[in-house]
Amino acid sequence: MLRTAICDLFGIEHPIIQGGMAHLGTAELVSAVSNAGGLGIIGAGYYQPDWVRQQIHLTRELTDRPFGINLPLTSPYADEVIAIILEEKVSVVTTGVGDPTAFVPALRELGMKVMPVVAGVRPAQRLEEAGVDAIVAEGMESGGHIGETTTMALVPQVVDSVSIPVIAAGGIADGRGLAAALALGAQGVQIGTRFACSEESVAHPRYKQKVLEAHDRSTVITGRTTSLPLRSLKNSLTEQFLALEESGVSSEELSMFGEGRMHLGLIDGDVDDGSLLAGQIAGMIHEIKPVRIIIEEMVAEAEAVIARLRSLQTGG
Amino acid sequence: MLRTAICDLFGIEHPIIQGGMAHLGTAELVSAVSNAGGLGIIGAGYYQPDWVRQQIHLTRELTDRPFGINLPLTSPYADEVIAIILEEKVSVVTTGVGDPTAFVPALRELGMKVMPVVAGVRPAQRLEEAGVDAIVAEGMESGGHIGETTTMALVPQVVDSVSIPVIAAGGIADGRGLAAALALGAQGVQIGTRFACSEESVAHPRYKQKVLEAHDRSTVITGRTTSLPLRSLKNSLTEQFLALEESGVSSEELSMFGEGRMHLGLIDGDVDDGSLLAGQIAGMIHEIKPVRIIIEEMVAEAEAVIARLRSLQTGG
Repeated sequence: MLRTAICDLFGIEHPIIQGGMAHLGTAELVSAVSNAGGLGIIGAGYYQPDWVRQQIHLTRELTDRPFGINLPLTSPYADEVIAIILEEKVSVVTTGVGDPTAFVPALRELGMKVMPVVAGVRPAQRLEEAGVDAIVAEGMESGGHIGETTTMALVPQVVDSVSIPVIAAGGIADGRGLAAALALGAQGVQIGTRFACSEESVAHPRYKQKVLEAHDRSTVITGRTTSLPLRSLKNSLTEQFLALEESGVSSEELSMFGEGRMHLGLIDGDVDDGSLLAGQIAGMIHEIKPVRIIIEEMVAEAEAVIARLRSLQTGG
Repeated sequence: MLRTAICDLFGIEHPIIQGGMAHLGTAELVSAVSNAGGLGIIGAGYYQPDWVRQQIHLTRELTDRPFGINLPLTSPYADEVIAIILEEKVSVVTTGVGDPTAFVPALRELGMKVMPVVAGVRPAQRLEEAGVDAIVAEGMESGGHIGETTTMALVPQVVDSVSIPVIAAGGIADGRGLAAALALGAQGVQIGTRFACSEESVAHPRYKQKVLEAHDRSTVITGRTTSLPLRSLKNSLTEQFLALEESGVSSEELSMFGEGRMHLGLIDGDVDDGSLLAGQIAGMIHEIKPVRIIIEEMVAEAEAVIARLRSLQTGG
């Protein structure tokens, strides 16, 4: 067992949080992660409020452990989903795109924990001042929407800049990554791609197969010319998107071209024209496993790594 | 003390290697690192053979410990410098740009160790087959010429793909980074920016000052449209360079525009029009210290980190 400050903060066994991936953070995955002692997180994405409420209820049927919800504040339903979260009192709320400052007091007053995802030191400091409980520092090796700084460089700089617990995200797929994140000063890890390829994930089998086939250079960043760069597996879609960007089409055209692509790739399994979000650790995933095994192996490996590190120390 | 396989391989005390930076990997820095128990590395850059031989001799006057030399195989003097290295029998030879395969047998036959720097799994595997002794896996958070994969994602994938020792480079500035790299499976670290800002580094004081003032978002990648992307601190030069790239000028024009910029920035201290190579950890460097102190603090902090990791383990 490895216990850190976030185990106590969230009431969980292992310092392992599932990234609140849109389309994949459904009750199936969320409850599996929470039941295995981690923190599952519903991905509200741009889903309608009814769907979000249903997922919260469904998750509660499948687990009595704490879980969270991720809400991108760019969702057209952001206000209604916030209202549902306040009503349902979900344990932990994480946010990515957008500034959650306005919602922090109301959420915390009801006992919920707020943990925004950031890609830089300054937003982390600003959000600590706004009263959030913890920060996810996400490196640019992550799948999905990303910043520019890598986990290795970002995490210690965020840790040095705030006094609340910091969770590392990006580039973590096994116990070595967990131990490395803790070494950098993080109190835990947030994991996306590894859980997207779990047995319980509702991702299409063809998406999972593509991740299994990936190597270290299989991902690419699209949308660098926009305000929302995105990492996914290279495919026909990313080639088309990059060509469009290079041709200088308007951001409206790009946005229309990208419409619905994530659902198409992740859920419908169109691995050519759909978006196959994945982090740079896709090349480390060789098997689809149940969430419980993933978490147990990750913790056991991290403990073995710590023992190995200790054995490197000599009397000097 | 922390001892790993590369301590024995290179005959050094600490698993800490100084990146063979062109212009900054001079006898002053190299001997300071080797005298402090790490492995100093001369940066041959595109310097003339006479200068390289002089630096080898000068380093030998300043230390009787092992040191290395880095040779970019794109140097116009590559063959002559290789001849000097063979003659002088420098302990360790590292290479970045270019394929060193042809030189490996001759170097190893004379007892020298060869340790190429790679940014991906496939070149690491190819070079292991070519008979090299170790591999530096360099993440894209590094300063200077970079690949695309980050240290956190790259190191474990390279470790899993080869059986020779792997050294982590990129994003490492302190004992947390050293401990994290060892956790990822590396046998040591290669450090650039932190040593570039040491007391012994011949970098211009204005360059060092710019690194001290940097924060987590101060670096930028130029040359993405070329085959040699480069990370450095944002300044007037990088703005001009990016504008030229966007305007679609030829690679010859870009190359001419970039000519001599590294010497101008690092040595002459022109912080506006010179290139200020630095990694994403520039924001973690707050003081110019002697090399010996940097290394001692790094090792002591890594040991403290390992003790802290151990204290997270509970009976379960």
